[in-house]
Amino acid sequence: MQVDSQRFLKDLHRLRRFGAQGPGVVRPAYSEPDVAARAWLADQMRDAGLRVEVDAMGNLFGLADGPSILLGSHSDSQPTGGWLDGALGVIAALEIARAAGGGVSVVSFQDEEGRFGVTTGSAVWSGNLAQDKADGLEDHAGQSLAEARRAMADMVTGPVDPAQFTGYIEMHIEQGPYLEANNEQIGVVEHIVGIRDMVITMVGQQNHAGTMPMHLRQDAFQALSAFNTALNDRLRNVVTPSTVWTIGHVSLSPNASSIVPGQVRFSMQWRDGEGDRLVRMEKIIRDLAEEIAAERNMTLSFGPMLGLEPVQMDARLRGALEGAAEVEAPGKWRVMPSGALHDATNLSRLMPVAMLFVPSIGGISHAFEEDTAEEDLVAGLRVMARAVDQLRVG
Amino acid sequence: MQVDSQRFLKDLHRLRRFGAQGPGVVRPAYSEPDVAARAWLADQMRDAGLRVEVDAMGNLFGLADGPSILLGSHSDSQPTGGWLDGALGVIAALEIARAAGGGVSVVSFQDEEGRFGVTTGSAVWSGNLAQDKADGLEDHAGQSLAEARRAMADMVTGPVDPAQFTGYIEMHIEQGPYLEANNEQIGVVEHIVGIRDMVITMVGQQNHAGTMPMHLRQDAFQALSAFNTALNDRLRNVVTPSTVWTIGHVSLSPNASSIVPGQVRFSMQWRDGEGDRLVRMEKIIRDLAEEIAAERNMTLSFGPMLGLEPVQMDARLRGALEGAAEVEAPGKWRVMPSGALHDATNLSRLMPVAMLFVPSIGGISHAFEEDTAEEDLVAGLRVMARAVDQLRVG
Repeated sequence: MQVDSQRFLKDLHRLRRFGAQGPGVVRPAYSEPDVAARAWLADQMRDAGLRVEVDAMGNLFGLADGPSILLGSHSDSQPTGGWLDGALGVIAALEIARAAGGGVSVVSFQDEEGRFGVTTGSAVWSGNLAQDKADGLEDHAGQSLAEARRAMADMVTGPVDPAQFTGYIEMHIEQGPYLEANNEQIGVVEHIVGIRDMVITMVGQQNHAGTMPMHLRQDAFQALSAFNTALNDRLRNVVTPSTVWTIGHVSLSPNASSIVPGQVRFSMQWRDGEGDRLVRMEKIIRDLAEEIAAERNMTLSFGPMLGLEPVQMDARLRGALEGAAEVEAPGKWRVMPSGALHDATNLSRLMPVAMLFVPSIGGISHAFEEDTAEEDLVAGLRVMARAVDQLRVG
Repeated sequence: MQVDSQRFLKDLHRLRRFGAQGPGVVRPAYSEPDVAARAWLADQMRDAGLRVEVDAMGNLFGLADGPSILLGSHSDSQPTGGWLDGALGVIAALEIARAAGGGVSVVSFQDEEGRFGVTTGSAVWSGNLAQDKADGLEDHAGQSLAEARRAMADMVTGPVDPAQFTGYIEMHIEQGPYLEANNEQIGVVEHIVGIRDMVITMVGQQNHAGTMPMHLRQDAFQALSAFNTALNDRLRNVVTPSTVWTIGHVSLSPNASSIVPGQVRFSMQWRDGEGDRLVRMEKIIRDLAEEIAAERNMTLSFGPMLGLEPVQMDARLRGALEGAAEVEAPGKWRVMPSGALHDATNLSRLMPVAMLFVPSIGGISHAFEEDTAEEDLVAGLRVMARAVDQLRVG
């Protein structure tokens, strides 16, 4: 097939206009610009000869006749999002479906960015999340998903049967610095990392910061600080260079300069491609927190743990992407993990899935400044098109 | 002179009723219960033969004729305060003035607890803070001091001349654990510690917590954590057992579990009885923060520094308290610093000052549970009365 890179770039920039703000976009799920963008996408799908269907969640499909491979991503954005996150995968899919003239379907999942949950649209479609449970989810302003999705009620046609798809390939920006740092154009994903996330609370004793001597304090911030320093050391022997762990949220109480903090609640998140390693890390984290709390005579509690297992990419789909990358970007591609979650995680329950990445300039995403060189966008398009061609033959 | 410990305890409990909430009090400066308590105190002062005067700030004086020694503290409370903080020093002063029958004046300063500033009433009276500057201060609800002090306008008589006082003695609860832990009844204060307080901001790079590898992160929380751990080590060689330092406020940005925090603002406070040591500590803190920021390629900024110098207690007044303590509580008293600020800090500009402490059960204060054994309250009263007697003779 022959993709048209100029048409592809032009469509990417047309999608960028919906919710445009400076170089970025503000197009959260079910917002006016999001619904308008989906209506425009539906028109493009129809023009490409695809049958448009929209499920109750607002997941937008452009369907080829008969069995087909599904390509796509999402067209909703972060509250202050970049122009390529999700949009790239959707427009690349559209261009390839157009060029293929059959056998390729397109999807833009709804609420991948989690206004209401985590990859909410594909979670419901894949059966990971029940619609009635999803409907009860609320955004930060307290609006329920059930209310919000009324904005798309006119477009809904009904359920879309996953059995018609032979697999799913998602192209996405890397959202990290590896490809750019290594002067590479394509990342073929080997797995989407698993994730663990929990809130840890340590309770000591709130005191006057002038009158309570250091050796008698049960200072919650000192405890957290000791925990963090020791954790970095203890994890060294267990992790790989792509393992990550993050304390991103810290809430001290009472959080006043003249009061020894009596309590800290903090988030502890870790990600890795191997489920076993996630378990080993969990044990280190829990044991260390227990030790620190016991040493300092503090009370410790662990919140519920969010756990998503690592997802392996399908060998056949991934092989097709690797073969195509070697043709289109010889010596300028690598196999790599995805540290971020994607709709592909949910779809792996239903069908073979694979992903490819193009570089993010400066590793920046979830920000207006997010960008990728045009030649890299086009390289990604060509790799995915070539892989789809091969899979259709094979 | 012969103090009446039963009358003293009865008055303490009568004052406790103004703004009572459970075992504690809610009697912030200029609130209805605070003004009512001051009106009641004024009546007690008049009954004790004192001349009542109230300055524009609402500082309430009961004045003896001619030169006198000033005793007292404050009767406003923390937003959720204990029943003895301030109240003890005022009621003890009242009882001693009654028992002395002359030569002893009484004061209840306004807003010691800092609804608007820091020891605001005595700061203005002592000339540390201009009235028009104080009037512009606002509480957390945005009300100005100028508005708030109208609640006492009816009681104001005019300025009170500090020249009539030969010295100031303030009795207070310790608000710390030392006396109780050592089974002692009286602390004679040697100095009120100096304090330094500033906000430090470190700016790194906000990133996706899944896609940014550890070795490329500029994580603001990791920087703070490393700073804190190293600071504890570096201060060891400089501090004494009574030196304290506190990170009580921490504000991460954006403070989300899936985002590598790009910025942290935190409070750094340190206190010591020696001005030189405060300066040495400042250098260690600033140098270390610079080092940490440079190592991690982060931006560092220091906010304005609040600085109050240590205040030495007057040798003669302190000697009188020590002599009286040895008579009233032989072997059960100690010389100690005050880690908390008090009105005496401001008054040291105007006249000789001294302070004595009684134990705080569990070291607790600024909380409803604040309490002191009755026999310790009475011991404090007797020590201060004996010291005043000796100073009048001497």
